[in-house]
Amino acid sequence: MAEAGARPWARSDEKHRAIVRAAREVFLSKGYLGTNMDLIASRSGVSKQTVYTHFGNKETLFVEIVGSMTGHAGDRVHHERPELGDDSELEAYLRAFAERQLRIVTEPELLQLRRLVIGEVGRFPELAKVLYERGPQRAIGELTAMFEVLHERGLLTGDPAAAAEWFNWLVMAAPLNRAMMLGDAAVPDDHELRRHVAEAVRIFLTAFGP
Amino acid sequence: MAEAGARPWARSDEKHRAIVRAAREVFLSKGYLGTNMDLIASRSGVSKQTVYTHFGNKETLFVEIVGSMTGHAGDRVHHERPELGDDSELEAYLRAFAERQLRIVTEPELLQLRRLVIGEVGRFPELAKVLYERGPQRAIGELTAMFEVLHERGLLTGDPAAAAEWFNWLVMAAPLNRAMMLGDAAVPDDHELRRHVAEAVRIFLTAFGP
Repeated sequence: MAEAGARPWARSDEKHRAIVRAAREVFLSKGYLGTNMDLIASRSGVSKQTVYTHFGNKETLFVEIVGSMTGHAGDRVHHERPELGDDSELEAYLRAFAERQLRIVTEPELLQLRRLVIGEVGRFPELAKVLYERGPQRAIGELTAMFEVLHERGLLTGDPAAAAEWFNWLVMAAPLNRAMMLGDAAVPDDHELRRHVAEAVRIFLTAFGP
Repeated sequence: MAEAGARPWARSDEKHRAIVRAAREVFLSKGYLGTNMDLIASRSGVSKQTVYTHFGNKETLFVEIVGSMTGHAGDRVHHERPELGDDSELEAYLRAFAERQLRIVTEPELLQLRRLVIGEVGRFPELAKVLYERGPQRAIGELTAMFEVLHERGLLTGDPAAAAEWFNWLVMAAPLNRAMMLGDAAVPDDHELRRHVAEAVRIFLTAFGP
């Protein structure tokens, strides 16, 4: 297994990534209880001792997976978010944002992670807390900042933080809850997704628009 | 264990109920994978063979638990629902309905059942399907019937079935999704619940009111 000439830190970094990759696959397919460190070690081509050296225990490793997957998804939703141009584009602007967010949140791997984590809340409440903070809570926080700007421009009424929470769940609730229980086949296709978002934005603007 | 004089069918019915009661406790505290038929047998005071005779296998027994708990909760939401009196009471009527529904759906045992079932969607999709049909789908169906009446009376606009789905998730989404991930401590207290429902109904009526 040793690679001649590899610098120790590069080798370690590579192992770290291999473990995370294998752990992600194993957790998503077998669930938390069904996963063991032996399987992760053999899938990532390292010794079980190396897995423990890098991550301490199964729970730490799962927290790492939850944090990195959710954080990465959040980055994709919120980075490079454009500013609203002309006031008249408000509705189209909110729709474009919501469509992007909903597409990312309903990707099969993220749905499966969410299901797993929810299933383990009783035993491991801190796992779901990580997911909640880096998922919905972050999304609502970023939306609040976005809505404060729109509020100052006179385009939204009411408290921006409250408006952000209502907007988030108007967009997410029906498709996400259906997908949680009915599986990935219940995720709306592109046409349904656009129609759903258009109606969510209409309802939102009727209640919070100028 | 034999009770002198008990009629066979009564004895069998009693065992059936004891098994269901024990299974409900064991599944909710240990999860699906963590549950085995030996434990259910010993908790219900019957032989393992008797458990199998009544329910065939662990999955059948879990479907029974999911179906009966969800069905019972739905009955409590929808039975004896009053008709709307004077048109002017529409907002109060919708609030009272939503408050009752939200209180029932966020009871700790139902939340835990929902978490468990979601956690097992990958392996046992039919479990979650049972929960979805007897939970949200039934709720939206009953709301649709209620909204058709209000629509005929000129109190709601738009398609009653679509309005029912938006109403359901306006009321449920934020508290239910928080409780799914943050645990029972995140369930709103009575004051928060009333405030949340009042705002959900306000948003709903702004978009679907007359």
